[in-house]
Amino acid sequence: MSRTQLLKQIFNAHSVAIIGASRRIGHPGHLSLMGLVESGFDGKIYPINPSAKEIDGIKAYPNIKSVHEPVDLAFIAVPAARVIPILRECAEKGVKGAIINSAGFKELGTKEGIEREEEVRRIASSTGMGIIGPNCVGFHRSSTSTMPGLPQPAEIRAILKEKGNVGMTSQSGWFCGFYIHKCALSGVRFSTVISSGNEADFTTIDFLEYLGEDEDTKVITMYLEGVKDGKSFLKVSKAITPKKPIIIWKVGLTKAGSRAALSHTGSLAGQGGIYGAVFRQAHVVQAFSSKELIDFTVAFSLCRKPKGNRVGIISSPGGFAVAAADACERFGLNVPRLSEKTSKALKKFLPRYSSTLNPIDLTMTAIENPQFYPECMEVLNADDKIDSIIVVTGASGFYDEFIVKSVGEIEKPVMVVLTPYWTVETEPSALAKAGIPTYAYPEEAAKSLAALTQYGTK
Amino acid sequence: MSRTQLLKQIFNAHSVAIIGASRRIGHPGHLSLMGLVESGFDGKIYPINPSAKEIDGIKAYPNIKSVHEPVDLAFIAVPAARVIPILRECAEKGVKGAIINSAGFKELGTKEGIEREEEVRRIASSTGMGIIGPNCVGFHRSSTSTMPGLPQPAEIRAILKEKGNVGMTSQSGWFCGFYIHKCALSGVRFSTVISSGNEADFTTIDFLEYLGEDEDTKVITMYLEGVKDGKSFLKVSKAITPKKPIIIWKVGLTKAGSRAALSHTGSLAGQGGIYGAVFRQAHVVQAFSSKELIDFTVAFSLCRKPKGNRVGIISSPGGFAVAAADACERFGLNVPRLSEKTSKALKKFLPRYSSTLNPIDLTMTAIENPQFYPECMEVLNADDKIDSIIVVTGASGFYDEFIVKSVGEIEKPVMVVLTPYWTVETEPSALAKAGIPTYAYPEEAAKSLAALTQYGTK
Repeated sequence: MSRTQLLKQIFNAHSVAIIGASRRIGHPGHLSLMGLVESGFDGKIYPINPSAKEIDGIKAYPNIKSVHEPVDLAFIAVPAARVIPILRECAEKGVKGAIINSAGFKELGTKEGIEREEEVRRIASSTGMGIIGPNCVGFHRSSTSTMPGLPQPAEIRAILKEKGNVGMTSQSGWFCGFYIHKCALSGVRFSTVISSGNEADFTTIDFLEYLGEDEDTKVITMYLEGVKDGKSFLKVSKAITPKKPIIIWKVGLTKAGSRAALSHTGSLAGQGGIYGAVFRQAHVVQAFSSKELIDFTVAFSLCRKPKGNRVGIISSPGGFAVAAADACERFGLNVPRLSEKTSKALKKFLPRYSSTLNPIDLTMTAIENPQFYPECMEVLNADDKIDSIIVVTGASGFYDEFIVKSVGEIEKPVMVVLTPYWTVETEPSALAKAGIPTYAYPEEAAKSLAALTQYGTK
Repeated sequence: MSRTQLLKQIFNAHSVAIIGASRRIGHPGHLSLMGLVESGFDGKIYPINPSAKEIDGIKAYPNIKSVHEPVDLAFIAVPAARVIPILRECAEKGVKGAIINSAGFKELGTKEGIEREEEVRRIASSTGMGIIGPNCVGFHRSSTSTMPGLPQPAEIRAILKEKGNVGMTSQSGWFCGFYIHKCALSGVRFSTVISSGNEADFTTIDFLEYLGEDEDTKVITMYLEGVKDGKSFLKVSKAITPKKPIIIWKVGLTKAGSRAALSHTGSLAGQGGIYGAVFRQAHVVQAFSSKELIDFTVAFSLCRKPKGNRVGIISSPGGFAVAAADACERFGLNVPRLSEKTSKALKKFLPRYSSTLNPIDLTMTAIENPQFYPECMEVLNADDKIDSIIVVTGASGFYDEFIVKSVGEIEKPVMVVLTPYWTVETEPSALAKAGIPTYAYPEEAAKSLAALTQYGTK
């Protein structure tokens, strides 16, 4: 069985044991159990705890051997010193895959930790059981979430249960939850999110290969500290990027950063220059911060591909019209002066003090004339010298339905900068719910559009 | 009377007429009236409207001449064509200052608009009445807010009424409200916010001079499209920066951006290189986006000045420990490996798998041990090889009281990266309320700390 086939089985587990399941609120053994239950997982769940008869109403077992039905997947959240014998028990029981949540392995930098991790690797290779982690938080799929520390308000949970096109891997467990939440607020849906931790057995490259083949995944994103085998990484990613984009936030680019990565997951980071060169060779899109990774994800997941780099800007706030134009040109896009014909078409309905040169400055009259947005979008859509559209709104709610309808009717890629003030996004906006890429600042939209344009027109 | 003295009189007006006061919700003539009332302004308010006896319970007058008491300040929100005769009436009445909210002047680019603006300038210089705008939204002071479009939820309004140390000017009116809101969410308080618009009479340089002399203002920030007199700007700003920092977001740096600025407020932007050189010569801190201006404002307004560039990082999320270290070094700060002595002091209470090299990686055990944060801060405070501290928290609420108490007790500058997920800031956080600089991403904190360090150690 190939690594990818084994991963498929693990991600489609029909029965999951939570070893170290706990009643203690906040404990990973409780959070992962709750995560699994609340995700709507429809298989069998076996909490394993030597001193509990039941946890949250689910029958518990003292150990995995006392479960008489087959178990596909074990989630292990016990102290590091107890992990090895439990892994052996799991392998004997015929468990296909194990997730080791526990920390206390190679990342310690001690002989004991390093040897313990070696033993994990030996068990995996000798038994054929696939192991994710150690020092990881599990995975999230629309149907099965074993990701502790992922309490989900109803609005977001609804989005997470929907199938999406983004597949993500991360060597930081905590970042998975942070990233899912931020992306979900912008309406992104996921095929898979994987916390890979120390990667004793399954590595980033295995997950990359899996996501490359996964039909649900159209965009691959990654928090990466380091890979062990640069050549394989290059080969695998090079084969994927012609079919789907890979966006990577590589951390540990500096001396202090790579020292931190080493103590975090035992990763050999550093060599930022080499990684940069490999990414360029493989046509990987590199993000230089967590925010950039999130912003690029929104663009690549939700936005149509532009055919060229000429952007039309429609803005109600004049200050952000200037900022959007500046940002587009700074990031390599072109904001051409609109043609006489287009300008004339705009002047038919816009007030005479609105600039129609590009940016199109609607001024605050847009509040009383929300139809200006779709009308301008339609005019830009008809202009064959414009490839994509950035819309900046200066107030919340007024324009949403007009913009949603318009984006559905035109062909060109559209990004919206939502700049409400005195209101705060506690749930996805109406635009995000409609699958329209939205940003809080014009610079974020421009940078993301530039990355998408570069990938799309390459 | 000097320009600065005249501005002082205008900002301390005891009576304000709103000319074009309106009952229509959303109309600038209604918003500015409400802004003034809700700001708690304790002077006299005169709504001027030829066809209303009262507006929102306040007695209205048909024109300014029919007000028999003296009027210090007029806020004018009528169509552009009616502005000139109204200005003349105001001058005859002895009004000290006028704010022209109306658009339809130089920014139109038409002969009519340009001539109308010239006439505004002539009235100002011939009568001695000071004029702000046209095409501006007014000003905000802790006691007097005539800034339309600034509806304020109670939490934010409370902050805005408190006196603060930030004085801001902006050629974009809309950006004032956006900026105030974002900064207020981080606990920043303002001395003054001024929307300068087309600057027919009072210019950015006048406001800069005023803020330079204003004792309440410790930090000056600015959204700038362009100045008319580069030499004066250099002279005035050069005299201020040794006493207080000036942070400027200069827009219109690109061809498309400067075209947008011209149609926005008639500003001659462009010449980004020249501006950059002037800023460097005057020791002005340059921000390259709205977000950077906001982030730098938080740092300069709330954070103590670091004595050097050596940063200690304390993080619970491992991924953001790596990101913070990377970002600090990328922006020119130093994240040194901690000394044996400091490392030993940390190892006394931290779990053995916590890295104490720098970043200090608390791991998720911090959730159960929130005192780790203040304990680590105390150790770093005692280390004379560390100049400032960045704290990253991975969950909301748990640590707030510990961190607030600790920041109050130590001497070194502290910035906090607050990364709660599944919760959203709808009001200032407990840390922001306590005046601690907070950021949503480690890169934002690092970049802001770098700017502050560079200014502080120069």
